[in-house]
Amino acid sequence: MNDKTSKPVSAQMRAQILDAALTVFIANGYVGTSTDRLAAAASVSKQTLYRAFGNKEGIFTALILSVCEQVNDPFAPMIERMKTADGAASAVHLLAGEFSSLILSPQTQQLRRLVIAEAARFPALGRLYWESGFERMLGSIGQCLAVLDERGLLSVPSPPLAAEHFAGLLLWIPANRAMFLSNARVADAEQQATVVKAGTEAFLRAYAA
Amino acid sequence: MNDKTSKPVSAQMRAQILDAALTVFIANGYVGTSTDRLAAAASVSKQTLYRAFGNKEGIFTALILSVCEQVNDPFAPMIERMKTADGAASAVHLLAGEFSSLILSPQTQQLRRLVIAEAARFPALGRLYWESGFERMLGSIGQCLAVLDERGLLSVPSPPLAAEHFAGLLLWIPANRAMFLSNARVADAEQQATVVKAGTEAFLRAYAA
Repeated sequence: MNDKTSKPVSAQMRAQILDAALTVFIANGYVGTSTDRLAAAASVSKQTLYRAFGNKEGIFTALILSVCEQVNDPFAPMIERMKTADGAASAVHLLAGEFSSLILSPQTQQLRRLVIAEAARFPALGRLYWESGFERMLGSIGQCLAVLDERGLLSVPSPPLAAEHFAGLLLWIPANRAMFLSNARVADAEQQATVVKAGTEAFLRAYAA
Repeated sequence: MNDKTSKPVSAQMRAQILDAALTVFIANGYVGTSTDRLAAAASVSKQTLYRAFGNKEGIFTALILSVCEQVNDPFAPMIERMKTADGAASAVHLLAGEFSSLILSPQTQQLRRLVIAEAARFPALGRLYWESGFERMLGSIGQCLAVLDERGLLSVPSPPLAAEHFAGLLLWIPANRAMFLSNARVADAEQQATVVKAGTEAFLRAYAA
Protein backbone atom coordinates (compact mmCIF):
# COMPACT_ATOMS: atom_id res chain seq x y z
CA MET A 1 0.00 0.00 0.00
CA ASN A 2 1.54 3.38 -0.94
CA ASP A 3 1.09 6.74 0.78
CA LYS A 4 -1.70 7.78 -1.50
CA THR A 5 -3.95 4.76 -0.84
CA SER A 6 -3.26 4.59 2.89
CA LYS A 7 -4.60 8.08 3.61
CA PRO A 8 -7.66 8.01 5.88
CA VAL A 9 -11.09 7.82 4.28
CA SER A 10 -13.10 11.00 4.85
CA ALA A 11 -16.16 11.03 7.08
CA GLN A 12 -18.24 12.00 4.06
CA MET A 13 -16.96 9.04 2.06
CA ARG A 14 -17.61 6.69 4.98
CA ALA A 15 -21.18 7.99 5.25
CA GLN A 16 -21.63 7.52 1.49
CA ILE A 17 -20.46 3.91 1.75
CA LEU A 18 -22.76 3.17 4.70
CA ASP A 19 -25.77 4.75 2.97
CA ALA A 20 -25.23 2.53 -0.03
CA ALA A 21 -24.47 -0.50 2.15
CA LEU A 22 -27.78 -0.24 3.98
CA THR A 23 -29.70 -0.61 0.72
CA VAL A 24 -27.55 -3.49 -0.51
CA PHE A 25 -27.69 -5.43 2.77
CA ILE A 26 -31.45 -4.98 3.05
CA ALA A 27 -31.99 -6.20 -0.49
CA ASN A 28 -29.64 -9.19 -0.34
CA GLY A 29 -29.12 -10.14 3.30
CA TYR A 30 -25.73 -10.34 4.95
CA VAL A 31 -24.59 -13.58 3.34
CA GLY A 32 -25.91 -12.60 -0.09
CA THR A 33 -23.95 -9.34 -0.10
CA SER A 34 -20.41 -9.22 -1.54
CA THR A 35 -17.86 -6.48 -1.02
CA ASP A 36 -17.79 -6.12 -4.83
CA ARG A 37 -21.45 -5.22 -4.72
CA LEU A 38 -20.97 -2.86 -1.79
CA ALA A 39 -18.13 -1.04 -3.58
CA ALA A 40 -20.15 -0.73 -6.79
CA ALA A 41 -23.24 0.56 -4.96
CA ALA A 42 -21.17 3.22 -3.18
CA SER A 43 -19.23 4.08 -6.37
CA VAL A 44 -15.90 3.53 -4.64
CA SER A 45 -13.05 1.09 -5.20
CA LYS A 46 -12.83 -2.06 -3.09
CA GLN A 47 -9.53 -0.67 -1.85
CA THR A 48 -11.30 2.36 -0.41
CA LEU A 49 -13.92 0.09 1.13
CA TYR A 50 -11.29 -2.02 2.86
CA ARG A 51 -9.36 1.06 4.02
CA ALA A 52 -12.53 2.50 5.51
CA PHE A 53 -13.97 -0.56 7.22
CA GLY A 54 -11.58 -3.53 6.99
CA ASN A 55 -14.03 -6.13 5.64
CA LYS A 56 -17.71 -6.95 5.15
CA GLU A 57 -18.33 -7.56 8.83
CA GLY A 58 -16.63 -4.22 9.56
CA ILE A 59 -19.04 -2.44 7.23
CA PHE A 60 -22.07 -4.17 8.74
CA THR A 61 -20.90 -3.40 12.27
CA ALA A 62 -20.30 0.27 11.40
CA LEU A 63 -23.73 0.41 9.76
CA ILE A 64 -25.50 -0.91 12.85
CA LEU A 65 -23.59 1.48 15.09
CA SER A 66 -24.44 4.37 12.82
CA VAL A 67 -28.16 3.57 12.81
CA CYS A 68 -28.10 3.10 16.60
CA GLU A 69 -26.50 6.54 16.96
CA GLN A 70 -29.27 8.05 14.88
CA VAL A 71 -31.86 6.34 17.06
CA ASN A 72 -30.40 7.54 20.30
CA ASP A 73 -29.40 11.12 19.53
CA PRO A 74 -32.82 12.80 19.62
CA PHE A 75 -33.43 11.75 23.20
CA ALA A 76 -30.91 14.02 24.88
CA PRO A 77 -32.95 17.13 23.92
CA MET A 78 -36.12 15.27 24.97
CA ILE A 79 -34.84 15.02 28.53
CA GLU A 80 -34.61 18.83 28.58
CA ARG A 81 -38.11 19.17 27.18
CA MET A 82 -39.50 16.95 29.93
CA LYS A 83 -38.34 19.58 32.42
CA THR A 84 -40.62 22.24 30.99
CA ALA A 85 -43.57 20.23 29.65
CA ASP A 86 -47.00 21.51 30.76
CA GLY A 87 -48.24 18.28 32.28
CA ALA A 88 -47.97 14.51 32.27
CA ALA A 89 -50.32 13.98 29.32
CA SER A 90 -48.59 16.38 26.96
CA ALA A 91 -45.10 15.27 28.03
CA VAL A 92 -45.78 11.56 27.56
CA HIS A 93 -47.61 12.14 24.30
CA LEU A 94 -44.67 14.18 22.98
CA LEU A 95 -42.21 11.47 24.02
CA ALA A 96 -44.38 8.73 22.53
CA GLY A 97 -44.72 10.49 19.18
CA GLU A 98 -41.00 11.23 18.79
CA PHE A 99 -40.01 7.80 19.91
CA SER A 100 -42.46 5.90 17.68
CA SER A 101 -41.74 7.82 14.51
CA LEU A 102 -38.02 7.32 15.01
CA ILE A 103 -38.12 3.60 15.72
CA LEU A 104 -40.79 2.85 13.17
CA SER A 105 -39.03 4.44 10.21
CA PRO A 106 -38.89 1.91 7.36
CA GLN A 107 -35.09 2.12 7.37
CA THR A 108 -34.77 1.24 11.05
CA GLN A 109 -37.27 -1.58 10.71
CA GLN A 110 -35.54 -3.05 7.68
CA LEU A 111 -32.21 -3.00 9.46
CA ARG A 112 -33.90 -4.56 12.46
CA ARG A 113 -35.12 -7.45 10.29
CA LEU A 114 -31.63 -7.89 8.90
CA VAL A 115 -30.02 -8.00 12.34
CA ILE A 116 -32.62 -10.46 13.65
CA ALA A 117 -32.07 -12.68 10.61
CA GLU A 118 -28.31 -12.75 11.23
CA ALA A 119 -28.27 -12.74 15.05
CA ALA A 120 -27.98 -16.52 15.36
CA ARG A 121 -25.06 -16.65 12.90
CA PHE A 122 -23.35 -13.46 14.16
CA PRO A 123 -24.16 -13.14 17.87
CA ALA A 124 -21.79 -10.18 18.24
CA LEU A 125 -23.86 -8.15 15.79
CA GLY A 126 -27.11 -8.94 17.59
CA ARG A 127 -25.53 -7.98 20.87
CA LEU A 128 -24.18 -4.75 19.41
CA TYR A 129 -27.65 -3.77 18.21
CA TRP A 130 -29.14 -4.69 21.58
CA GLU A 131 -26.61 -2.78 23.64
CA SER A 132 -25.97 0.27 21.49
CA GLY A 133 -29.56 0.58 20.25
CA PHE A 134 -32.06 -0.94 22.64
CA GLU A 135 -30.40 -0.43 25.96
CA ARG A 136 -29.24 3.13 25.27
CA MET A 137 -32.66 4.10 23.96
CA LEU A 138 -34.41 2.59 26.98
CA GLY A 139 -31.93 4.42 29.19
CA SER A 140 -32.84 7.75 27.58
CA ILE A 141 -36.56 7.08 27.94
CA GLY A 142 -36.01 6.12 31.56
CA GLN A 143 -34.25 9.44 32.14
CA CYS A 144 -37.20 11.30 30.59
CA LEU A 145 -39.64 9.44 32.83
CA ALA A 146 -37.47 10.07 35.90
CA VAL A 147 -37.77 13.81 35.22
CA LEU A 148 -41.57 13.52 35.13
CA ASP A 149 -41.46 11.55 38.38
CA GLU A 150 -39.27 14.18 40.07
CA ARG A 151 -41.68 16.87 38.94
CA GLY A 152 -44.53 14.91 40.56
CA LEU A 153 -46.31 14.50 37.21
CA LEU A 154 -45.98 10.71 37.19
CA SER A 155 -45.21 8.02 39.77
CA VAL A 156 -42.26 6.05 38.40
CA PRO A 157 -40.59 3.95 41.12
CA SER A 158 -38.36 2.19 38.56
CA PRO A 159 -37.56 4.28 35.46
CA PRO A 160 -35.87 1.35 33.63
CA LEU A 161 -38.93 -0.85 34.12
CA ALA A 162 -41.32 1.95 33.17
CA ALA A 163 -39.25 2.58 30.01
CA GLU A 164 -39.71 -1.06 29.02
CA HIS A 165 -43.46 -0.78 29.54
CA PHE A 166 -43.57 2.47 27.60
CA ALA A 167 -41.77 0.86 24.66
CA GLY A 168 -43.93 -2.27 24.80
CA LEU A 169 -47.21 -0.33 24.83
CA LEU A 170 -46.15 1.72 21.82
CA LEU A 171 -44.16 -0.70 19.71
CA TRP A 172 -45.37 -4.24 20.13
CA ILE A 173 -48.00 -4.17 17.44
CA PRO A 174 -46.43 -1.76 14.91
CA ALA A 175 -42.97 -3.31 15.14
CA ASN A 176 -44.34 -6.81 14.67
CA ARG A 177 -46.49 -5.60 11.81
CA ALA A 178 -43.31 -4.25 10.22
CA MET A 179 -41.53 -7.54 10.74
CA PHE A 180 -44.23 -9.88 9.47
CA LEU A 181 -46.20 -7.76 7.01
CA SER A 182 -44.91 -5.39 4.37
CA ASN A 183 -43.16 -2.21 5.38
CA ALA A 184 -45.91 -0.24 3.67
CA ARG A 185 -48.06 -1.02 6.69
CA VAL A 186 -45.62 0.74 9.01
CA ALA A 187 -46.01 4.02 7.22
CA ASP A 188 -49.77 4.36 7.80
CA ALA A 189 -49.73 7.64 9.72
CA GLU A 190 -53.33 7.51 10.91
CA GLN A 191 -53.01 4.00 12.30
CA GLN A 192 -49.77 5.01 13.98
CA ALA A 193 -51.37 8.08 15.59
CA THR A 194 -54.05 5.81 17.06
CA VAL A 195 -51.43 3.47 18.52
CA VAL A 196 -49.51 6.41 20.02
CA LYS A 197 -52.64 7.93 21.55
CA ALA A 198 -53.88 4.65 23.05
CA GLY A 199 -50.42 3.66 24.29
CA THR A 200 -49.92 7.09 25.87
CA GLU A 201 -53.27 6.87 27.66
CA ALA A 202 -52.60 3.37 28.99
CA PHE A 203 -49.13 4.42 30.17
CA LEU A 204 -50.55 7.50 31.92
CA ARG A 205 -53.07 5.31 33.75
CA ALA A 206 -50.41 2.77 34.75
CA TYR A 207 -47.99 5.42 36.01
CA ALA A 208 -50.32 8.15 37.27
CA ALA A 209 -48.94 10.27 40.13
CA MET B 1 -47.34 -42.41 -9.42
CA ASN B 2 -48.87 -45.83 -8.60
CA ASP B 3 -51.55 -46.65 -6.05
CA LYS B 4 -49.05 -47.57 -3.42
CA THR B 5 -47.15 -44.27 -3.45
CA SER B 6 -50.23 -42.09 -3.79
CA LYS B 7 -51.78 -43.27 -0.54
CA PRO B 8 -52.18 -40.39 1.91
CA VAL B 9 -49.39 -39.72 4.37
CA SER B 10 -50.44 -40.42 7.96
CA ALA B 11 -50.86 -37.60 10.48
CA GLN B 12 -48.10 -39.16 12.55
CA MET B 13 -45.72 -39.17 9.60
CA ARG B 14 -46.60 -35.56 8.78
CA ALA B 15 -45.89 -34.55 12.39
CA GLN B 16 -42.58 -36.43 12.24
CA ILE B 17 -41.59 -34.55 9.08
CA LEU B 18 -42.55 -31.18 10.57
CA ASP B 19 -40.66 -31.86 13.79
CA ALA B 20 -37.51 -32.62 11.84
CA ALA B 21 -38.12 -29.70 9.45
CA LEU B 22 -38.26 -27.16 12.30
CA THR B 23 -34.75 -28.11 13.40
CA VAL B 24 -33.37 -28.09 9.86
CA PHE B 25 -34.95 -24.74 8.92
CA ILE B 26 -33.77 -23.11 12.15
CA ALA B 27 -30.20 -24.32 11.62
CA ASN B 28 -29.93 -23.45 7.93
CA GLY B 29 -32.53 -20.80 7.12
CA TYR B 30 -35.18 -21.22 4.44
CA VAL B 31 -32.90 -20.70 1.46
CA GLY B 32 -30.13 -22.87 2.92
CA THR B 33 -32.50 -25.83 3.42
CA SER B 34 -32.93 -28.44 0.67
CA THR B 35 -35.70 -31.02 0.41
CA ASP B 36 -32.94 -33.67 0.39
CA ARG B 37 -31.88 -32.48 3.81
CA LEU B 38 -35.47 -32.32 5.07
CA ALA B 39 -36.14 -35.88 3.91
CA ALA B 40 -32.93 -37.17 5.50
CA ALA B 41 -33.64 -35.41 8.80
CA ALA B 42 -37.15 -36.91 8.94
CA SER B 43 -35.90 -40.34 7.82
CA VAL B 44 -38.42 -40.44 4.97
CA SER B 45 -38.05 -40.59 1.20
CA LYS B 46 -38.32 -37.40 -0.83
CA GLN B 47 -41.33 -39.01 -2.49
CA THR B 48 -43.10 -39.18 0.89
CA LEU B 49 -42.10 -35.59 1.58
CA TYR B 50 -43.62 -34.40 -1.69
CA ARG B 51 -46.76 -36.48 -1.20
CA ALA B 52 -47.24 -34.97 2.25
CA PHE B 53 -46.53 -31.30 1.53
CA GLY B 54 -45.96 -30.71 -2.20
CA ASN B 55 -42.68 -28.80 -1.99
CA LYS B 56 -40.33 -26.90 0.34
CA GLU B 57 -42.65 -23.91 0.63
CA GLY B 58 -45.48 -26.33 1.43
CA ILE B 59 -43.48 -27.80 4.29
CA PHE B 60 -42.56 -24.38 5.64
CA THR B 61 -46.16 -23.18 5.40
CA ALA B 62 -47.45 -26.30 7.18
CA LEU B 63 -44.78 -25.84 9.85
CA ILE B 64 -45.81 -22.25 10.58
CA LEU B 65 -49.48 -23.23 10.69
CA SER B 66 -48.69 -26.08 13.04
CA VAL B 67 -46.75 -23.86 15.46
CA CYS B 68 -49.49 -21.22 15.32
CA GLU B 69 -52.04 -23.89 16.24
CA GLN B 70 -49.96 -24.85 19.23
CA VAL B 71 -49.76 -21.21 20.29
CA ASN B 72 -53.46 -20.63 20.10
CA ASP B 73 -54.91 -23.82 21.53
CA PRO B 74 -54.33 -23.23 25.26
CA PHE B 75 -56.38 -20.03 25.25
CA ALA B 76 -59.80 -21.56 24.81
CA PRO B 77 -59.63 -23.16 28.30
CA MET B 78 -58.23 -19.87 29.63
CA ILE B 79 -61.43 -18.07 28.66
CA GLU B 80 -63.34 -20.52 30.89
CA ARG B 81 -60.91 -20.01 33.74
CA MET B 82 -61.42 -16.24 33.58
CA LYS B 83 -65.08 -16.87 34.47
CA THR B 84 -64.20 -18.38 37.82
CA ALA B 85 -60.97 -16.58 38.79
CA ASP B 86 -60.97 -15.10 42.31
CA GLY B 87 -60.14 -11.54 41.31
CA ALA B 88 -58.48 -9.32 38.73
CA ALA B 89 -54.95 -9.75 40.06
CA SER B 90 -54.96 -13.54 40.12
CA ALA B 91 -56.78 -13.78 36.77
CA VAL B 92 -54.39 -11.43 34.93
CA HIS B 93 -51.36 -13.02 36.55
CA LEU B 94 -52.53 -16.46 35.47
CA LEU B 95 -53.13 -15.26 31.93
CA ALA B 96 -49.77 -13.48 31.81
CA GLY B 97 -47.84 -16.52 33.01
CA GLU B 98 -49.47 -18.95 30.57
CA PHE B 99 -49.17 -16.56 27.68
CA SER B 100 -45.52 -15.65 28.29
CA SER B 101 -44.25 -19.17 28.77
CA LEU B 102 -45.99 -20.27 25.61
CA ILE B 103 -44.77 -17.44 23.37
CA LEU B 104 -41.30 -17.34 24.85
CA SER B 105 -40.48 -21.00 24.33
CA PRO B 106 -37.16 -21.28 22.49
CA GLN B 107 -38.89 -23.16 19.66
CA THR B 108 -41.48 -20.45 19.06
CA GLN B 109 -38.84 -17.73 19.20
CA GLN B 110 -36.53 -19.52 16.79
CA LEU B 111 -39.36 -19.97 14.33
CA ARG B 112 -40.24 -16.34 14.81
CA ARG B 113 -36.69 -15.33 13.83
CA LEU B 114 -36.90 -17.55 10.77
CA VAL B 115 -40.21 -16.06 9.63
CA ILE B 116 -38.98 -12.49 10.18
CA ALA B 117 -35.83 -13.26 8.19
CA GLU B 118 -37.87 -14.57 5.26
CA ALA B 119 -40.86 -12.21 5.42
CA ALA B 120 -39.47 -9.80 2.83
CA ARG B 121 -38.76 -12.61 0.36
CA PHE B 122 -41.94 -14.61 1.10
CA PRO B 123 -44.60 -12.11 2.14
CA ALA B 124 -47.28 -14.82 2.18
CA LEU B 125 -45.44 -16.67 4.93
CA GLY B 126 -45.09 -13.54 7.05
CA ARG B 127 -48.77 -12.81 6.60
CA LEU B 128 -49.71 -16.37 7.49
CA TYR B 129 -47.75 -16.13 10.75
CA TRP B 130 -49.31 -12.75 11.51
CA GLU B 131 -52.87 -13.82 10.85
CA SER B 132 -52.88 -17.38 12.15
CA GLY B 133 -50.53 -16.68 15.06
CA PHE B 134 -50.61 -13.09 16.19
CA GLU B 135 -54.15 -12.08 15.38
CA ARG B 136 -55.73 -15.28 16.68
CA MET B 137 -53.72 -15.11 19.87
CA LEU B 138 -54.63 -11.47 20.45
CA GLY B 139 -58.26 -12.39 19.78
CA SER B 140 -58.15 -15.06 22.48
CA ILE B 141 -56.54 -12.69 24.97
CA GLY B 142 -59.14 -10.06 24.12
CA GLN B 143 -61.90 -12.60 24.88
CA CYS B 144 -60.29 -13.36 28.25
CA LEU B 145 -60.12 -9.66 29.09
CA ALA B 146 -63.71 -9.13 27.98
CA VAL B 147 -64.80 -11.76 30.52
CA LEU B 148 -62.99 -9.88 33.29
CA ASP B 149 -64.64 -6.65 32.14
CA GLU B 150 -68.10 -8.27 32.18
CA ARG B 151 -67.44 -9.53 35.68
CA GLY B 152 -66.57 -5.97 36.75
CA LEU B 153 -63.03 -6.98 37.70
CA LEU B 154 -61.40 -4.76 35.06
CA SER B 155 -62.46 -1.84 32.92
CA VAL B 156 -61.76 -2.82 29.30
CA PRO B 157 -63.60 -0.58 26.83
CA SER B 158 -61.76 -2.13 23.86
CA PRO B 159 -60.66 -5.75 24.38
CA PRO B 160 -58.59 -5.86 21.14
CA LEU B 161 -56.64 -2.75 22.16
CA ALA B 162 -56.19 -3.99 25.73
CA ALA B 163 -54.93 -7.32 24.35
CA GLU B 164 -52.27 -5.45 22.36
CA HIS B 165 -51.20 -3.57 25.48
CA PHE B 166 -51.15 -6.76 27.51
CA ALA B 167 -48.88 -8.43 24.95
CA GLY B 168 -46.62 -5.39 24.67
CA LEU B 169 -46.15 -5.07 28.43
CA LEU B 170 -45.22 -8.72 28.74
CA LEU B 171 -43.32 -9.47 25.58
CA TRP B 172 -41.48 -6.43 24.29
CA ILE B 173 -38.29 -6.94 26.26
CA PRO B 174 -38.11 -10.75 26.43
CA ALA B 175 -39.05 -11.23 22.76
CA ASN B 176 -36.46 -8.70 21.63
CA ARG B 177 -33.89 -10.27 23.90
CA ALA B 178 -34.64 -13.59 22.20
CA MET B 179 -34.28 -12.02 18.76
CA PHE B 180 -31.05 -10.11 19.35
CA LEU B 181 -29.28 -12.07 22.09
CA SER B 182 -28.87 -15.80 22.46
CA ASN B 183 -31.87 -17.98 23.14
CA ALA B 184 -30.32 -19.04 26.45
CA ARG B 185 -31.36 -15.64 27.79
CA VAL B 186 -35.02 -16.39 27.08
CA ALA B 187 -35.03 -19.39 29.35
CA ASP B 188 -34.02 -17.53 32.53
CA ALA B 189 -37.06 -18.36 34.65
CA GLU B 190 -36.39 -15.86 37.41
CA GLN B 191 -35.97 -12.95 35.02
CA GLN B 192 -39.14 -14.03 33.24
CA ALA B 193 -41.11 -14.20 36.48
CA THR B 194 -40.05 -10.61 37.21
CA VAL B 195 -41.21 -9.44 33.77
CA VAL B 196 -44.57 -11.23 34.21
CA LYS B 197 -45.11 -9.76 37.68
CA ALA B 198 -44.23 -6.20 36.65
CA GLY B 199 -46.22 -6.41 33.40
CA THR B 200 -49.24 -7.79 35.24
CA GLU B 201 -49.11 -4.98 37.80
CA ALA B 202 -48.80 -2.26 35.15
CA PHE B 203 -51.68 -3.77 33.19
CA LEU B 204 -53.87 -3.95 36.32
CA ARG B 205 -53.20 -0.25 37.00
CA ALA B 206 -53.92 0.71 33.39
CA TYR B 207 -57.18 -1.27 33.23
CA ALA B 208 -58.42 -1.09 36.82
CA ALA B 209 -62.21 -1.29 37.23
